[in-house]
Amino acid sequence: MDFDAMFTAQLDALKKEGNYRIFAELERQCGAFPKAKSHDADAPEEVTVWCSNDYLGMGQHPVVRQAMKDAIDACGTGAGGTRNISGTAHHHLVLERELADLHGKEAALLFTSGYVSNWAALSTLGARLPDAVILSDELNHASMIEGIRHSRAKKVIWRHNDPEDLDRKLAALPANAPKIVAFESVYSMDGDISPMEEIVEVAEKHGAMTYLDEVHAVGLYGPRGGGVSEERGLAHRITLIEGTLGKAYGCMGGYVTGSAAMCDFIRSFASGFIFTTALPPAVAAAATASIRHLKESQTERQAQRAQVARLRSLLDRVGIPHLDNDSHIIPVMIKDPVKCRMLADILMRDYGIYVQPINYPTVPKGTERLRFTPGPLHTDADLDHLVRALTVLWKQCALAHAVA
Amino acid sequence: MDFDAMFTAQLDALKKEGNYRIFAELERQCGAFPKAKSHDADAPEEVTVWCSNDYLGMGQHPVVRQAMKDAIDACGTGAGGTRNISGTAHHHLVLERELADLHGKEAALLFTSGYVSNWAALSTLGARLPDAVILSDELNHASMIEGIRHSRAKKVIWRHNDPEDLDRKLAALPANAPKIVAFESVYSMDGDISPMEEIVEVAEKHGAMTYLDEVHAVGLYGPRGGGVSEERGLAHRITLIEGTLGKAYGCMGGYVTGSAAMCDFIRSFASGFIFTTALPPAVAAAATASIRHLKESQTERQAQRAQVARLRSLLDRVGIPHLDNDSHIIPVMIKDPVKCRMLADILMRDYGIYVQPINYPTVPKGTERLRFTPGPLHTDADLDHLVRALTVLWKQCALAHAVA
Repeated sequence: MDFDAMFTAQLDALKKEGNYRIFAELERQCGAFPKAKSHDADAPEEVTVWCSNDYLGMGQHPVVRQAMKDAIDACGTGAGGTRNISGTAHHHLVLERELADLHGKEAALLFTSGYVSNWAALSTLGARLPDAVILSDELNHASMIEGIRHSRAKKVIWRHNDPEDLDRKLAALPANAPKIVAFESVYSMDGDISPMEEIVEVAEKHGAMTYLDEVHAVGLYGPRGGGVSEERGLAHRITLIEGTLGKAYGCMGGYVTGSAAMCDFIRSFASGFIFTTALPPAVAAAATASIRHLKESQTERQAQRAQVARLRSLLDRVGIPHLDNDSHIIPVMIKDPVKCRMLADILMRDYGIYVQPINYPTVPKGTERLRFTPGPLHTDADLDHLVRALTVLWKQCALAHAVA
Repeated sequence: MDFDAMFTAQLDALKKEGNYRIFAELERQCGAFPKAKSHDADAPEEVTVWCSNDYLGMGQHPVVRQAMKDAIDACGTGAGGTRNISGTAHHHLVLERELADLHGKEAALLFTSGYVSNWAALSTLGARLPDAVILSDELNHASMIEGIRHSRAKKVIWRHNDPEDLDRKLAALPANAPKIVAFESVYSMDGDISPMEEIVEVAEKHGAMTYLDEVHAVGLYGPRGGGVSEERGLAHRITLIEGTLGKAYGCMGGYVTGSAAMCDFIRSFASGFIFTTALPPAVAAAATASIRHLKESQTERQAQRAQVARLRSLLDRVGIPHLDNDSHIIPVMIKDPVKCRMLADILMRDYGIYVQPINYPTVPKGTERLRFTPGPLHTDADLDHLVRALTVLWKQCALAHAVA
């Protein structure tokens, strides 16, 4: 059987619809972020990264780098085993305590990624709580969707950010079924933020537990970086807060926080936690340093907010439409995969501006976009250069301008 | 609804049957491995680790540590994005080329862990090849089982390491269905090695693709560390070889290798690849250094083999039964979760010997064991100390001695 022919046929279909993905090969350069060296033949040697999830540049912060290097010197490069079989390092437990404190919870549990934490936690809760029903916001991230699917629990989709719809759907369920309301704080593709208090109130009314994904918010929101739930004083009312160490904290890994019993439960039953090599202790040490820094320092968050506001107002001034939202994410809608790719290619080649075209399956077909994430290390000159380039391209491509 | 009470009830059941897991909190110490500092109150301050998957001690090798630290200085601590959205670093591509070369394949694709590589690759192949049937060895790892389950493809279990049973089961399937034969080289809990040539021949006869998990073999077997498939000259006949960077290579991450079309297919469709932050470039750099070292050096492999053989013969001499196999893994069967835990506790507390009791769900209930993985850095004195301790305990606990 010609398997390669089967693979190629499906890849050809992707290419035809403009959804075949080409990765930009970069070499980030410490001290120069968001500048990076490009290894792509069509790009200038140095480019400015405009779509990183290292939102605050913590991945190059001296304190974080030093913590990681010190831990490598002290205890090596890998964990050497699963958490159960020789892979639990002191650094993991220190980080778990730090995370529990960050969200004001009793306990935390580390995973190898945010994807795995969502997948493993939701699939375990859904599978092991008898007759559980998971109520999932319709725009939840793929990792949550896959975890819910894997749990084989009953799943009810509620309308995006719509507490009234959630209320109706909760009311229709049997009173004695364990209910899990799963949602995010910042939705990364549109950058909108959920009406958290209303959702929590609806969940509490029906005795449902709340499962909140804060991966695009931790480090960025709240006076200590505890996310939108901290900023709004709601963390103590959320049953489980999930987050990542791979975005604003500049490292790698995911986690859940909540009651000690819940974390122990997931620790004890989640296949995706049990059967995998633990995070390198050095990565845990780096993440701990990053979290501690962002618990104290407001500098990075304030500078980021200033640049986000500045880019929005520059775009408004030249009439380039972007989705309005309360977050740090600025989506410029293109709504066509081929045009989106073309614009990104020109920005890279002619202007040294790297912004990845966002297309299917990350967003629905027809909602392709460029997604800008200005950070504290983008200079005013970087912003001006970006807006000048977009203005030229907007005219050339005859894309619709927003009404001024 | 009292969710904590529900969690606690299930945890209590685990505790009652002796399957509640307590992690040993260690601090590995570079230069002293397999010695580690213990943070457990009941253990001596320094213990010897006897159950690490850092089989060759590469996690503390100076070349590997230096590569990781250099990459941190050059480009920071994290990737900052998914592979598609700003997260592809030059270091990832260098590593993927190294992995393709290691297994003599056209291409390779990196994942955040071996668990994720199995789960994502098998779920994608099973879900996207129309009418695919996955034939899975009955003792395959949890990550493969979960991936197959997630794919919702038809699944056929064949008897462990039994090519004749596989042959019969393949023959019973429709000729035109795409068939995937999934198996491992070294099964980590019993340490047995699969009859790879016979399995490949059966698969070829039926036009099935072969999916081989070499996570407990890469770095350890074959003249360049390409695994059992390299040692037996079979790599070119295996469709997909999956491996890990978290065990013998001493780092973190997983991968698949195979044809360029197949890797591109998985890259383009696997949710667990697409929607997750890439491995830190520094981890990729460390893994590359480790693979390159073990492609050249036989020292670590030879020293490991010598200590494995020595421990087996010492155990034989004192009549402590262990599973016979051709690998580096020495399981001593206890067959009771409570006794297994008790033995491990005494070894830790009284002898500074750390070996994690292996119990359900890692192995079936009733097959609990202590699993020793001697490495090149265990000294003869370490081995003697271990065997002396086991001898004393064996007498005390009145466990059955093997017939001499």
